[in-house]
Amino acid sequence: MVPFTPPVAEQRFVLDHVAGLAELAATDRFAAASDDVVDAVLEGAGQFAAGEWEPLAERGDSEGPRWTPEGVTMPAGYPEAYRAYVEGGWGTIGAPEAWGGQGLPFALQTAVLETLGGANTGFALCPTLTVGAIEALAHHGSQAQQSLYLPKLATGEWTGTMNLTEPQAGSDVGALRTTATPRGDGTWSIRGTKIFISFGDHDMAGNIVHLVLARTPDAPPGTRGISLFLVPKFRLDADGNPAEPNDIRVVSIEHKMGLHASPTCVLSFGDHDDCIGELIGPEHGGMRAMFTMMNNARLNVGLQGVQVAEAATQKAIGYALDRVQGARGGAAVPIAEHPDVRRMLMRMKAQTQAARALVYYAAGQVDRAALGDAAARDRLELMTPLAKAHGTDLGCEVASIGVQVHGGMGYIEETGAARFYRDARITPIYEGTNGIQAADLVGRKLALGGGSAFAALVADMRGEAEAPALVQLIDLCEATGRHLAAAAPDDRLAGSYPFLTMVSVAAAGWLLERQARAAGDDAFGRGKRAVARFYLDQIVPEAHGLHAAATASADILYALEAEALAA
Amino acid sequence: MVPFTPPVAEQRFVLDHVAGLAELAATDRFAAASDDVVDAVLEGAGQFAAGEWEPLAERGDSEGPRWTPEGVTMPAGYPEAYRAYVEGGWGTIGAPEAWGGQGLPFALQTAVLETLGGANTGFALCPTLTVGAIEALAHHGSQAQQSLYLPKLATGEWTGTMNLTEPQAGSDVGALRTTATPRGDGTWSIRGTKIFISFGDHDMAGNIVHLVLARTPDAPPGTRGISLFLVPKFRLDADGNPAEPNDIRVVSIEHKMGLHASPTCVLSFGDHDDCIGELIGPEHGGMRAMFTMMNNARLNVGLQGVQVAEAATQKAIGYALDRVQGARGGAAVPIAEHPDVRRMLMRMKAQTQAARALVYYAAGQVDRAALGDAAARDRLELMTPLAKAHGTDLGCEVASIGVQVHGGMGYIEETGAARFYRDARITPIYEGTNGIQAADLVGRKLALGGGSAFAALVADMRGEAEAPALVQLIDLCEATGRHLAAAAPDDRLAGSYPFLTMVSVAAAGWLLERQARAAGDDAFGRGKRAVARFYLDQIVPEAHGLHAAATASADILYALEAEALAA
Repeated sequence: MVPFTPPVAEQRFVLDHVAGLAELAATDRFAAASDDVVDAVLEGAGQFAAGEWEPLAERGDSEGPRWTPEGVTMPAGYPEAYRAYVEGGWGTIGAPEAWGGQGLPFALQTAVLETLGGANTGFALCPTLTVGAIEALAHHGSQAQQSLYLPKLATGEWTGTMNLTEPQAGSDVGALRTTATPRGDGTWSIRGTKIFISFGDHDMAGNIVHLVLARTPDAPPGTRGISLFLVPKFRLDADGNPAEPNDIRVVSIEHKMGLHASPTCVLSFGDHDDCIGELIGPEHGGMRAMFTMMNNARLNVGLQGVQVAEAATQKAIGYALDRVQGARGGAAVPIAEHPDVRRMLMRMKAQTQAARALVYYAAGQVDRAALGDAAARDRLELMTPLAKAHGTDLGCEVASIGVQVHGGMGYIEETGAARFYRDARITPIYEGTNGIQAADLVGRKLALGGGSAFAALVADMRGEAEAPALVQLIDLCEATGRHLAAAAPDDRLAGSYPFLTMVSVAAAGWLLERQARAAGDDAFGRGKRAVARFYLDQIVPEAHGLHAAATASADILYALEAEALAA
Repeated sequence: MVPFTPPVAEQRFVLDHVAGLAELAATDRFAAASDDVVDAVLEGAGQFAAGEWEPLAERGDSEGPRWTPEGVTMPAGYPEAYRAYVEGGWGTIGAPEAWGGQGLPFALQTAVLETLGGANTGFALCPTLTVGAIEALAHHGSQAQQSLYLPKLATGEWTGTMNLTEPQAGSDVGALRTTATPRGDGTWSIRGTKIFISFGDHDMAGNIVHLVLARTPDAPPGTRGISLFLVPKFRLDADGNPAEPNDIRVVSIEHKMGLHASPTCVLSFGDHDDCIGELIGPEHGGMRAMFTMMNNARLNVGLQGVQVAEAATQKAIGYALDRVQGARGGAAVPIAEHPDVRRMLMRMKAQTQAARALVYYAAGQVDRAALGDAAARDRLELMTPLAKAHGTDLGCEVASIGVQVHGGMGYIEETGAARFYRDARITPIYEGTNGIQAADLVGRKLALGGGSAFAALVADMRGEAEAPALVQLIDLCEATGRHLAAAAPDDRLAGSYPFLTMVSVAAAGWLLERQARAAGDDAFGRGKRAVARFYLDQIVPEAHGLHAAATASADILYALEAEALAA
């Protein structure tokens, strides 16, 4: 088994040259992000994740959490490893200083979450969700809610969840039916069933803070009538400590293809009409609050693509350097020496670095937006669907190549390559399917600022790009974007996914080429340049081939009646 | 749950227009393949597979076979369902008439195996392997071996296995160490351990005929020193009936990601020095005999791509027609009405039909080659790596889209979409990894007949192709083929995989366009044309984008030392 090695040097380099960390550290807000602190955080997180979390990953997959009538029990070792995470302060990196966090850049928190998830993807989903709950409360919670809940969420002593989905309300959140009725004392009685609740229950924390979307009486239909509620697993006593349990039942946990370390729960709220919640923000303001939580969550899911890709790549390279099979020049060699295996390994490295560049770049925009930079806010809006959808597509692709590099052993669970393949497959689905991301790109995001947000990205890319294939792709993206912006809605949606991939590849190529220019003459720099060249020479030209599909009309999709598809 | 519906009309159409069944039926050899017989076989196989085999698929996955000290026990229902297969005569379709088979075209047998495997992919691997054993014995066995074993294999009363892989000998078969030493009576004593033996043991048949590659004393090293042995699970008595057990131990079965219905065994031969085998063909003739078995096995693995793709497509379409989510024009609609979902469904249909076209076309060449057509033999050689590698790549792609169409439900095992995704992932690996197929294409196959085999395919495609994107792709394939044929070996291998994909897409586009031309004006014909148009408009242009990678030199792959990849 090849142990996971957190890619600290790579992370630092990408933080510097893609997320622009030095620029952030030069501001008052992020002054704490000094060179030393950043290095110490990356190194420390790496040691912690590789030492404490990765050794549990296999057990998380093969055993998984168990449902009991009293709640969900995590596999042996997880509660202790979670406690070590809390005690190490790894949850506090990006949390607000006002509530006990370190207030470091979101970009640095992103690197820490990458490391945790590279070591144990399913486990790292727990802190990822807590980060979302912190965001929502920090932006929309009342003073009382913030002071009661944020300090505990910031340390990770309590964890957070997001409760959106119901059986009839998946991508269409507006179809949800969970109700909240006033109890007369300012609190609300919550009633309904939520599904697909990641870490909806577990035995690792003192409390679980459920953020629940529900409908108040006489609320308008659809998303306009949705409100957000804070529903703790244990109600707080007068001192703010967890006391009597709320009326929340863990109905079951799902039998999933992967990500087994993460218990995916069906939660029933208010079976006995005694589930008490508090409104977060204004009534009917649920979608706005949810989007606060969801936008960064989308980046963090894109980051899961990076996590899996990095771990899968390391494992495949380790195997390919070790496994001797076949000969070159008469001598038996490790399979890494064979051209097509080498091609697969280079592709894994290139796609992993591409995914990381997209996500870290977007993370840098989160921090700039927090500093009040309006252009960064637009750029973030534009990059979010790319980072989420393309980042997760690449996680799946890289994990698949990883299985292939292992040959027959890749199909045997004990090897571990198959786990990455299974774990990755949920990421293009949750937090808004990749199709929803593509719709968001060609709908809301292309139109942002009357098209100026997209035009600015194209201009920035064009200003730096040198490789002819990349320049050509940027031109194609611009022309396609213009075409889609003017197209009928169905045509726009018909081309949305190939367009998203084109723009993502262009942006990743731009950021990888930039890194290659910035890289020094040492081994790391040579590696960077080789990987960037592979990406620009082989992967960027592939994206040219998507132009036809991106500009095809919807006619072809509707040439057959839906029912005729089944024939 | 959407029940599996064998695609009988599609199969018949592709047999007619791609495999050229009428032409075959006009020969004496295949005169039995009359219209009526073909229809009856397709209908009957469909009813049998959907009725008897598909209902067991979920259990095969969730329970799977069990290892016991006495051997492998299949899940409940499998022995009975296998017996029904034998009694229905489904194993005899393509087997030689001389040995009790029906002697029908390989192309028709391909359609039957597609149906069986579409219903239950893992289960269908058992007959698939038996077909390989029949091929090997029919071509290389002695008269005595043939008359003792072929009648039982033809009906499926006994099953066959292929024993190639050893821990140190995977893609490099020549590295195997299993030994065969003469026992003085014309038989051989076999000793060694084989891994990854599909259906290496089970409780469904009266005997299991292991075909085992081994080394005789003083054999030359590498593949030249390999011989093929027939090693029955039970030795035959004087009447040819299974009697005392041979010295073969089932060490374990693997814990695989998918294809759980198929027990993948580690077999130890000759623990007690009492494992008796017979030589098949001449000593050191093992590779030749194995290739007989393996070439058709490669097509049958490509066919597994078709099996999974068809089943995954049906399930996704069924779900998308049923699942109401979101609105169009103000009204709630099934998700199949949304453009990007429709795009996914059209892509699934198009890629499934592309994979089927490649495999059925190659199967038609098997039959022509059996009739002594030398050009067909060359065409078959050329198409085999395309059908195997691209067929299985498409199986994986389509299964992945199928998960995506199901959204969060796709990740829950109970839905069934995840099973296809897991099952498919072995197919690009076994029977020669897809990288090995690509190496075969640019090595042996491009050079076949001094390049005339490839030139003939290009000429055939060009003679029919009409869509400009397809014509352009054919031109690119020709130019790339010429480039690679003249390139240094490493450069050739560096571009092999993208080249294989380009040629596969061109060939599939050619065969789909041909089908669209031949299709009538009924619902089936309209479906054909819509799917072909989607393929030609969207998927063929994507393959243009592979040209850069196919012609890139190997330099970029070796820009970094292998060890530097791990940095």
